Amino acid sequence: MYTAWVNTSERLIESTRELLWERGYVGTSPKAIQQRAGAGQGSMYHHFAGKHELALTAIRRTADDMRARAEEQLSAPGTALERLTAYLLRERDVLKGCPIGRLTQDPDVMADPVLRAPVDETFVWLRGRLADILAEGRDRGELDAALDPAGTASAVVAVLQGGYVLARAADSAELFHTAVTGVLALLSSRTTP
Amino acid sequence: MYTAWVNTSERLIESTRELLWERGYVGTSPKAIQQRAGAGQGSMYHHFAGKHELALTAIRRTADDMRARAEEQLSAPGTALERLTAYLLRERDVLKGCPIGRLTQDPDVMADPVLRAPVDETFVWLRGRLADILAEGRDRGELDAALDPAGTASAVVAVLQGGYVLARAADSAELFHTAVTGVLALLSSRTTP
Repeated sequence: MYTAWVNTSERLIESTRELLWERGYVGTSPKAIQQRAGAGQGSMYHHFAGKHELALTAIRRTADDMRARAEEQLSAPGTALERLTAYLLRERDVLKGCPIGRLTQDPDVMADPVLRAPVDETFVWLRGRLADILAEGRDRGELDAALDPAGTASAVVAVLQGGYVLARAADSAELFHTAVTGVLALLSSRTTP
Repeated sequence: MYTAWVNTSERLIESTRELLWERGYVGTSPKAIQQRAGAGQGSMYHHFAGKHELALTAIRRTADDMRARAEEQLSAPGTALERLTAYLLRERDVLKGCPIGRLTQDPDVMADPVLRAPVDETFVWLRGRLADILAEGRDRGELDAALDPAGTASAVVAVLQGGYVLARAADSAELFHTAVTGVLALLSSRTTP
């Protein structure tokens, strides 16, 4: 019985993550979550107070995953530019968009401070992490001493997020790569010879 | 009578533009459009075949406005970098997001080639326009001869779109300015002394 409960709860969370990514908060009904999870209404309300609690759990898990996957490239050996390049150019489901970034276009998520918090925290973390790597590269003499790590990190995260926007508009993942390669070219001109 | 018709049609289009920006396609019901426009159901269907036709008209008008407003800075006198800076840093309703860029996160708009077309065309135009300005700056000797105009233009448009994402996540327009200033600093390091 315990195992069955755990599985249902897991299926509800994973279904909510998928639906939030595909349809957004307003487009994700409790009924759609139950159908995708293969769970009844009673079962859903046994595990969660409702769609809001499920969405919060789902968003937090997606945010945790995103950080863990980013660390795979960001904490790897190499120069600052090599680590940033590996992170920006790693395999992504570009046309589906960023599961965290997309939530910023979701009016119900943005209007709710509790649901917005994990989205905000993810970007605060990512900007800080990239700024640290850039500062490290600058201090090691790999990058131009005049480079501003915080401003550059924000620009890089913005290119990543905007790259998804351009790719979706054109229905072509190529546009993401063009934008990312474009900012990496600007950044590589700040490396010291 | 004719004037009243024109006004109702205009009110329906403008109400649809606002609602698409605030709520997205799925969150915009024909009833909500009618209520905001102060128009009855019969009146709406007298002017438009339905929500789809109204949305297409609204998106096209928003795209035309965006181009016209971009040209104010982009066709002004100055160096390539000055014109780009003026465009990127002009007054914007940052926390509302880009009325065109936001549509890329709207699953119903992206799934519909007719509604996606004006979104795609707007970004194709903007990337091309910025690439031309950068190429002009390079040919005039203002910018580094090795600069890739197309890739750089895509990165700049991506920063603009990603800047909205970061600002909305943090509920602070400041983040947009940090990202945009960050890419301008990278670009200004490519100017020739």
